Amino acid sequence: MRKLIVASTSTIHGSRFLEYLLPHLEKHFKSVTNLLFIPYARPGGISHSTYTGIVSDALSSLPFTVQGIHEFDDPIKAIKDAEAIYVGGGNTFVLMDQLISSGLIEVLKNKVKAGTPYLGTSAGSNIVGPNVKTTNDMPIVHPETLDALDLVPFNINPHYLDPDPDSKHKGETRETRIKEFHAYNDINVIGLREGSWIEVNGSAYVLKGPMTARIFKKNTDPFEISPETDLNEIL
Amino acid sequence: MRKLIVASTSTIHGSRFLEYLLPHLEKHFKSVTNLLFIPYARPGGISHSTYTGIVSDALSSLPFTVQGIHEFDDPIKAIKDAEAIYVGGGNTFVLMDQLISSGLIEVLKNKVKAGTPYLGTSAGSNIVGPNVKTTNDMPIVHPETLDALDLVPFNINPHYLDPDPDSKHKGETRETRIKEFHAYNDINVIGLREGSWIEVNGSAYVLKGPMTARIFKKNTDPFEISPETDLNEIL
Repeated sequence: MRKLIVASTSTIHGSRFLEYLLPHLEKHFKSVTNLLFIPYARPGGISHSTYTGIVSDALSSLPFTVQGIHEFDDPIKAIKDAEAIYVGGGNTFVLMDQLISSGLIEVLKNKVKAGTPYLGTSAGSNIVGPNVKTTNDMPIVHPETLDALDLVPFNINPHYLDPDPDSKHKGETRETRIKEFHAYNDINVIGLREGSWIEVNGSAYVLKGPMTARIFKKNTDPFEISPETDLNEIL
Repeated sequence: MRKLIVASTSTIHGSRFLEYLLPHLEKHFKSVTNLLFIPYARPGGISHSTYTGIVSDALSSLPFTVQGIHEFDDPIKAIKDAEAIYVGGGNTFVLMDQLISSGLIEVLKNKVKAGTPYLGTSAGSNIVGPNVKTTNDMPIVHPETLDALDLVPFNINPHYLDPDPDSKHKGETRETRIKEFHAYNDINVIGLREGSWIEVNGSAYVLKGPMTARIFKKNTDPFEISPETDLNEIL
């Protein structure tokens, strides 16, 4: 049975990396002794080991060790053998490109489908949808495809931001961008605000955290759902 | 001799579409009788004819007509025959995908290289650089390549936004995104604020408009340049 935490962000304002998720991760990764971390999204261009160090420090109060996938000679085997997997945020295009060029998309998908507990934050959440075409990131590399793990039947827009009514800036709002997405795609999109996450248990997809989330369906006005809503009710 | 206006945005706060550029466009498009408009970026998913209508209205005080490229049976011939060209903003990925699938990249590049006056705003400015990997847009379609017209030796980041020191949002700032770009690319990037444009005359690239622009070079701290600076002095 699939078991995922799909979070908007690793870090919320005024709190340390992953701190707000720690009580939930303790349950999610119960009886895990080693967590495989995939640092490929390289936020700000930092190295895989620096990023893995940050994650290891952030999770040091939990009863398991953290190893970065770059520490293994065979990344495919590392995924196949993993007890639990965390894919961190950064740049979604860089993450996709590295997963594709290392031949990891299918193996990661099958591994999580088979029930290995998964945590995604930001870019690591973007990749659990059918595609990553609702990422907010800059396309600094050009992966072969934007088709992703397809572990849930909707796309995520992480770090969802409401339009600022006082803004004088003419760049597109997030809502406008997602509307443009629906001119070319049919997939439902969950605008997940920072501090929110979706808990996946089998085919139940429940919104968690203190905030509502914004739902975008093609040819429908966007609307809000409350925490504890199962997305199956509305999609 | 190349002759381009490469603008951050079509519209500034409190002003109508292209209004702030009208006096400059009058000179730029002097003795032009017909302007070819390329509406492929489809802002907000609007149709090619609606978009062309908006442009035609906005430029109605100028002594030329406006035709959308979608009105021609042969878009390649339309570009070859054009007296002047405007590529409007919207979604850069949609624009690139349509230019590539219509076989227009090379013909457009050669036409503008040969001296046909060109106006780009937003996505239409992104495409004049070596690649569009510094766009702010959402990758709602996946073009074959992000390599663009390469008419100027730097990339544009249009609608450049300074970090908000009061923000509690943890999504990446524009500066962080461009820093990530430089982890994978060497091309210099011009962060062009709304209301700014670059005037290209041959190999002179002069910053115009009331504001400074922010320059990003790999392995260098970003810095500001003043209006009227020729980018050759600092790149």
